[in-house]
Amino acid sequence: MKELEDRIRRDGVVKSSQVLKVDSFINHQMDVELFRDMAKVWHKDFADAPINKVLTIEASGIGIAAVVATEFGVPAVFAKKSQSINLDGDVYCTKIKSFTHGRVYDVIVSKKFLGPNDHVLIVDDFLANGCAMDGLLDICRVAGATVEGIGIAVEKGFQPGGKHLRDEGYIVDSLAIVDSMDPQTNEIEFRHQ
Amino acid sequence: MKELEDRIRRDGVVKSSQVLKVDSFINHQMDVELFRDMAKVWHKDFADAPINKVLTIEASGIGIAAVVATEFGVPAVFAKKSQSINLDGDVYCTKIKSFTHGRVYDVIVSKKFLGPNDHVLIVDDFLANGCAMDGLLDICRVAGATVEGIGIAVEKGFQPGGKHLRDEGYIVDSLAIVDSMDPQTNEIEFRHQ
Repeated sequence: MKELEDRIRRDGVVKSSQVLKVDSFINHQMDVELFRDMAKVWHKDFADAPINKVLTIEASGIGIAAVVATEFGVPAVFAKKSQSINLDGDVYCTKIKSFTHGRVYDVIVSKKFLGPNDHVLIVDDFLANGCAMDGLLDICRVAGATVEGIGIAVEKGFQPGGKHLRDEGYIVDSLAIVDSMDPQTNEIEFRHQ
Repeated sequence: MKELEDRIRRDGVVKSSQVLKVDSFINHQMDVELFRDMAKVWHKDFADAPINKVLTIEASGIGIAAVVATEFGVPAVFAKKSQSINLDGDVYCTKIKSFTHGRVYDVIVSKKFLGPNDHVLIVDDFLANGCAMDGLLDICRVAGATVEGIGIAVEKGFQPGGKHLRDEGYIVDSLAIVDSMDPQTNEIEFRHQ
């Protein structure tokens, strides 16, 4: 998606060859007009899929999921990262490792909101190692929900998550795939799609 | 807002005289059509305010903030609940106490995304004791931002947060104010507004 690549080139900050900051428009301040344009692309790309739910994980995915769900006209569900006393016991639970924060999280979705009748589009801001995505896919598997596809804003193409998921047969629709970044020049190479 | 009150009566679950669950449409599964209707009410109520930014706190506020920001045509910023290694050091930081989770959080907003030129609408899903809101207001104060108003989905009118904020002079636009709840009958009394 050219708009997103241009925006990453303009406002993204390459902190190292592995770390790209997009906090001015995606995951701290949110440019919701951009989110809407992203949602339109996914809506077109998944026009033939019977998607009835958008699934993401807190926190950075929630804003994108809300705008995408609006575009699709379906509800969104966000997986929670720790047991809240306000969640009932009847939940799907899995563990994910966060490389960003260097710890393991419990990830939880209430059984009320995901089941065999659900056709899910999973969305998230980043795909790198794919640990968060593996957790969400695990929850969908246990719930019996059908994963129609995975929509990612920024995929780090030099990390294994995307390849791994595509090899498993998932449709991974990443709107920008970064193949390499240079923290000296702030130059970013995107994969031709 | 009658639509929200009706929805709370239909799908809300009174867990105790203090705890109301709205996780099927607000803070776990999100009914984004409802969010849009809520956003329209705030857009009308704050039509004369020069709002250029929507501010909330992760995680439950983010979906609402994204939809509200879309309606206002402005960016949204969500405060983060703990120091992430991907956040630069230049941040506003305050501490808030969560009664729900029984712990104290660091709350952080990057200085890049809030400053004296900002006219902010703060939104959140719940207002009870007002601890999270006090934290966001503290950050706005230090940033020199103008708080044009506070939009709340569900205010617990039997807890002191709303009164306290109104006494301080803030415009608190709560779309549903629960004055009392009965966990035996699931009956909810809303304040006439």
